[in-house]
Amino acid sequence: MKKIINKPEDFVNEMMEGIELAYGDRVHFLDGDCRVLVSGYPVKDGKVGIVTAGGSGHLPVFLGYVGSGMLDGCAIGNVFASPSSQKMANMIKACDRGSGVLCLYGNYGGDKMNFDMACEMVDMDDIKTKTVLVCDDVASSAKETAAKRRGVAGMVYAFKVAGAAADKMMSLDEVASVAEKALANIRTMGVALSPCIVPEVGKPTFSINDDEIEVGMGIHGEPGIEVRKMMTADEVAKVILDKILADMPLASGDKVSVMVNGLGATPLEEQLIVYRSIAKMLAAKNVSVFMPHIGEFATSMEMAGLSITVFKLDSQLEELLRAPASTPFYTNENK
Amino acid sequence: MKKIINKPEDFVNEMMEGIELAYGDRVHFLDGDCRVLVSGYPVKDGKVGIVTAGGSGHLPVFLGYVGSGMLDGCAIGNVFASPSSQKMANMIKACDRGSGVLCLYGNYGGDKMNFDMACEMVDMDDIKTKTVLVCDDVASSAKETAAKRRGVAGMVYAFKVAGAAADKMMSLDEVASVAEKALANIRTMGVALSPCIVPEVGKPTFSINDDEIEVGMGIHGEPGIEVRKMMTADEVAKVILDKILADMPLASGDKVSVMVNGLGATPLEEQLIVYRSIAKMLAAKNVSVFMPHIGEFATSMEMAGLSITVFKLDSQLEELLRAPASTPFYTNENK
Repeated sequence: MKKIINKPEDFVNEMMEGIELAYGDRVHFLDGDCRVLVSGYPVKDGKVGIVTAGGSGHLPVFLGYVGSGMLDGCAIGNVFASPSSQKMANMIKACDRGSGVLCLYGNYGGDKMNFDMACEMVDMDDIKTKTVLVCDDVASSAKETAAKRRGVAGMVYAFKVAGAAADKMMSLDEVASVAEKALANIRTMGVALSPCIVPEVGKPTFSINDDEIEVGMGIHGEPGIEVRKMMTADEVAKVILDKILADMPLASGDKVSVMVNGLGATPLEEQLIVYRSIAKMLAAKNVSVFMPHIGEFATSMEMAGLSITVFKLDSQLEELLRAPASTPFYTNENK
Repeated sequence: MKKIINKPEDFVNEMMEGIELAYGDRVHFLDGDCRVLVSGYPVKDGKVGIVTAGGSGHLPVFLGYVGSGMLDGCAIGNVFASPSSQKMANMIKACDRGSGVLCLYGNYGGDKMNFDMACEMVDMDDIKTKTVLVCDDVASSAKETAAKRRGVAGMVYAFKVAGAAADKMMSLDEVASVAEKALANIRTMGVALSPCIVPEVGKPTFSINDDEIEVGMGIHGEPGIEVRKMMTADEVAKVILDKILADMPLASGDKVSVMVNGLGATPLEEQLIVYRSIAKMLAAKNVSVFMPHIGEFATSMEMAGLSITVFKLDSQLEELLRAPASTPFYTNENK
């Protein structure tokens, strides 16, 4: 296992210490608990809180989006494992300013069970919560069973839009509705070229041959749709975009945002080459792209591969996407 | 060669097309030449131009820093190869606003030869230029022969500080002096765990065993100081910081900025764990850290490893570092 770490069992806590040492002027641990990060940015009284949670190993998801205009708090577990419901409840309480808290997170069993319990716990303190699940991975279930889909990189767009809605002092119901509308317009699919290694496990999450690529793989190494012989960038872009558009058709004149998200080891150069293919195919359909996001937004540590997210915009979603945001790992200046 | 690309010979041009398709509202090709990127951000009349050049394969270095408050232009060659002097001359001309142009780039033979020729070419058009070389890699030559050192990730700090000085309408001589002062206070060293593959070559730049780490390796796979058995994050941080501080001692009360730069395949989690070690060692020396930079700033495509840069600040350098900047891949809001 070739990683620049200390003891595998200290991986998450030391990473968290690194975040607090680097960005402690803007984000901090909740009551000294290094597994719950909350925003220290200035915030308006009565703003709806936005929180998420999930396993570690996906930076900048989720911790990197705690800040201004996105998340108010994030609880994390061990690598690829859910944090406890108690930590989630503590976070929800800390992020409530009297207007309630939106729990916005990826559709995974452990996270769901723990968040449901946490919401029950804070309900006894009269804290209102709503839950919106991110289910954007088109490869993980058919359209008819879309509610079973996994949540992947598209959650970053959901964080951005919900955070902006909360900043506009919308109510909890309104923020939840906006997040649901955004997610109804978000689709993602990825490909993987190599596995990653969970530090405490010490062996690769899956195996793949040197001349193969797995289409539709999840960000924890969940099996995809098929293993194919290595493809070109144009082929990868076409396979993914075709799958996304079959699920969410776009019409001439539509406007979208596109995220090309590196999973960890795939260089920015390759991400840009794939973006080029996507942008050309969309232009050929007379679909315009607003605020492309190219880089590492939701990773699987050192996994090679990338995902593509298409986010279909209406005027409200566009306005919320372009609203200012500032976190240690995401900045939008609203230019 | 497992890369998400099309034809290897199209790697650079397609990557550049991706940049223009994504960020063409802010940066653009010079006269249709996809190897020269210039800023389209608003700029004050008479501002000194800042340009750089070098081989491709290091994104965000160098192209990603063309914008506001950093570089005005960047010419790039094939992967790890210098662009031509003619392209550099075209860029210098385009970035001159009557006050001259600073050529700020890494100390590599090809880039130096071509930039020197380019400066002679534009001299015939009465365009003033000054050259400042980045030689921050302490592993690449002894202190006595520091002028022979390679330029690596520390160049990003030099771009930032020189760009801010130019934005303050300093003269060409003043901007060059500030860049020189900054670089006299910047030291970098890296470690590599795995090689990268140049697309048109198709085989790894070097080989290293599964249980080994190369200390002091360059960003093109140039040999380092020694190959060692795999080390912990704390050991990596200590080896690098000791080497840097032997070259540039710090005293109690000093203030520095620290960059932990992933070379491509090394996850943000590992970078944060290394940052934690560095921050603790500096705190023990009563050295404070201002504006840490953690992420991928200067890469070698899919190489695994990281570099650490220490930038010793005085009040002027701190002010220039904190000045606002905005490029497709670097934002500082001056918070």
